Amino acid sequence: MAADLGAGEWYPKDKTAIVGIGEGVEDGKYMRWGRATKSEFQLACEAALAACEDAGLDPKKLDGFCSYSDDRNGAPRLAAALGVDELKCSIMQWGGGGGGGSGAVMNAVMAVASGSADYVIAFRSLCQGQFGRFGQFPGGGEPMRLTGDMGFMASYGLMSPPQMLGGICGRRHMALYGTKSEDFGRIAVQCYRAANRNPRAVMYGRPITMEDHQNSRMIADPMHLYDCCQENDGAAAVLITSPERARDLKQPPVYIMSAASGNQYRAGSNPFAGELAAANFGPDRGSGVAKRMYSQAGITVDDIDVAQIYENFTSLALMSLEEHGFCEIGEGGAYVQSGAIDWPNGKCPINTSGGNLAEAYIHGFELQVEAVRQMRGTSTMQVEGAEICLVASGPGVTPVTDMIVRR
Amino acid sequence: MAADLGAGEWYPKDKTAIVGIGEGVEDGKYMRWGRATKSEFQLACEAALAACEDAGLDPKKLDGFCSYSDDRNGAPRLAAALGVDELKCSIMQWGGGGGGGSGAVMNAVMAVASGSADYVIAFRSLCQGQFGRFGQFPGGGEPMRLTGDMGFMASYGLMSPPQMLGGICGRRHMALYGTKSEDFGRIAVQCYRAANRNPRAVMYGRPITMEDHQNSRMIADPMHLYDCCQENDGAAAVLITSPERARDLKQPPVYIMSAASGNQYRAGSNPFAGELAAANFGPDRGSGVAKRMYSQAGITVDDIDVAQIYENFTSLALMSLEEHGFCEIGEGGAYVQSGAIDWPNGKCPINTSGGNLAEAYIHGFELQVEAVRQMRGTSTMQVEGAEICLVASGPGVTPVTDMIVRR
Repeated sequence: MAADLGAGEWYPKDKTAIVGIGEGVEDGKYMRWGRATKSEFQLACEAALAACEDAGLDPKKLDGFCSYSDDRNGAPRLAAALGVDELKCSIMQWGGGGGGGSGAVMNAVMAVASGSADYVIAFRSLCQGQFGRFGQFPGGGEPMRLTGDMGFMASYGLMSPPQMLGGICGRRHMALYGTKSEDFGRIAVQCYRAANRNPRAVMYGRPITMEDHQNSRMIADPMHLYDCCQENDGAAAVLITSPERARDLKQPPVYIMSAASGNQYRAGSNPFAGELAAANFGPDRGSGVAKRMYSQAGITVDDIDVAQIYENFTSLALMSLEEHGFCEIGEGGAYVQSGAIDWPNGKCPINTSGGNLAEAYIHGFELQVEAVRQMRGTSTMQVEGAEICLVASGPGVTPVTDMIVRR
Repeated sequence: MAADLGAGEWYPKDKTAIVGIGEGVEDGKYMRWGRATKSEFQLACEAALAACEDAGLDPKKLDGFCSYSDDRNGAPRLAAALGVDELKCSIMQWGGGGGGGSGAVMNAVMAVASGSADYVIAFRSLCQGQFGRFGQFPGGGEPMRLTGDMGFMASYGLMSPPQMLGGICGRRHMALYGTKSEDFGRIAVQCYRAANRNPRAVMYGRPITMEDHQNSRMIADPMHLYDCCQENDGAAAVLITSPERARDLKQPPVYIMSAASGNQYRAGSNPFAGELAAANFGPDRGSGVAKRMYSQAGITVDDIDVAQIYENFTSLALMSLEEHGFCEIGEGGAYVQSGAIDWPNGKCPINTSGGNLAEAYIHGFELQVEAVRQMRGTSTMQVEGAEICLVASGPGVTPVTDMIVRR
């Protein structure tokens, strides 16, 4: 398959780096739904400014903004608010919802590597308390709009993300492979453990046990409350430039080995996608994006020391571990029960800041920031000696995206 | 200023090429508002398929889609409908409205040049007859939504594009430089002349004279009816790949010398942007994007043989000619009156398919397709011996974008 890779001729491995990280928080913490006192736009600006401050870069030198999932805080307005000299790159990852976090980074990599921009902020700002909620299908006073992709799902009764994604895929995994609710629970427990070491986390000071998970109320069978991510307020940003420019900045660069976007992803909104992909493209696992990401980076899953796995729902995070080759398809339950994802002794600890479930749901972009912290050695759940970190964005609606960074 | 250019180190000049063009039309013609019998999505698919057919490429090999201005025809859905193997690149130019056409191409260039994707469709599909109209501020049954950038304009009574863009900028140009309505009219007359040689054009068979222009009703002073672009139905697409891959395809490649995005553009929605830019950045002309585009391409305005100048409104097209260095700021009126924009004898004929005004308003992307036709020598208003073509997308809301292609 190598010949078919987009990177067949050239991929800018290690040609770009993350040199700054920043968050839009209040009193040092992400916020529960509706608790932000600042606007979503202000928090976006603050995250970008914090990333510049962290890097030691004058914000006027920023010349690109990349985001995803129709972030409301438009690049031209951000550029004006931050006093940017010239906006050379203004890119929205198109489609994919929460699967777009690594895509925003991928697009920034393309901009910097192609010489189209020099200092690009990839970010997401999301204050669901100030606008509509992802977790709620429009109804009530709003007219029902079943246009576009939504129309294909709503007509089958899949009206909100727990139904569209976590529930239907989780139940199918249980039926096919004997996966148990406690397997999903292992992921939730690890996320909450991480959050309880991380003062920025919304769930800091709120540890849970497997018993709590099992006793929590059902949201969309088999997804319990603690299997589902939250609705939160906050912003997260990373600053991307070339390694040459990084030499003049404050932080050690965290190199971007690979970032990729793809549509073949078994845990995406089409639960049959993997089987279809296998039927069309041979017996390899369905996730073209993971395969391409590893190929571009020139490494295998065995080289990953720590991973940030997007968990809108634990069922999809478990499938994502399979998709990314941590174990075979169907063996996700056994894999998490082996302790492989736990800190500090697991083979590859995951979601070391608490992730979507327990740090905050900044549509997954808090995972990008945590990946950088791990590579700098400054995580509150630091994996000792970690040199390479995977961020699997999504699963969700395709395209999904992935990235790998190294120290 | 060269040291500050994003392209300071490297820009992929001539490293990508347009190898196919396609349009979503019915009976070989673009359509007036509301006249399309096919859906906007179907026309998007047909334009992409036509570009593949033109190039001789199996559509399954497409692996990227780039568009702008929140095109409703999402990349994942297009990929599914077209049977794409894997969607490696899914990018929306963020912000900029009609200024994003060359930005969609720029982002495709970045994707191909960085090895992130191999065969990328840049396109726009727009059937304003099937959805809301750009030319109309939401009102009536719809709640007024003054969120985001719109809030800053609507509060000053600028409720629709002729007011927000064409009218206020045109009147200011007249006041500052003595520009006359007939100067704007010269652009309209050239566009309609071109359309009347182009059977695809909505205004084919409907020539106008300067007298018709002057007698047409006022839309937003000083913009007459014939100064304003239309509302149309249709789609337009170009297929971008590397020159190496182009060798296996049917058409001679049209090389992309440069494509750029920027926020400093005097004719943008902020009529003071140029003066502000000049105050901040010295006495050079305000348009950073034009300067950067020429620098990346390694040419000057004198090398441009033919130009496609986005004309939502003729006043802005006149300012765009100034911004791109065809004449000095304020001398646009004298420039067009000299006949420089006319075919066949002008120094640099413009809008040779009829443009937004008279071919069709596919949000300006029909200009990209016409640029390729000029480089192939197949335009219905062919500029003899033309080797280099500029497409100035926008002006409109920033960011605006530009591109230069060559034979």
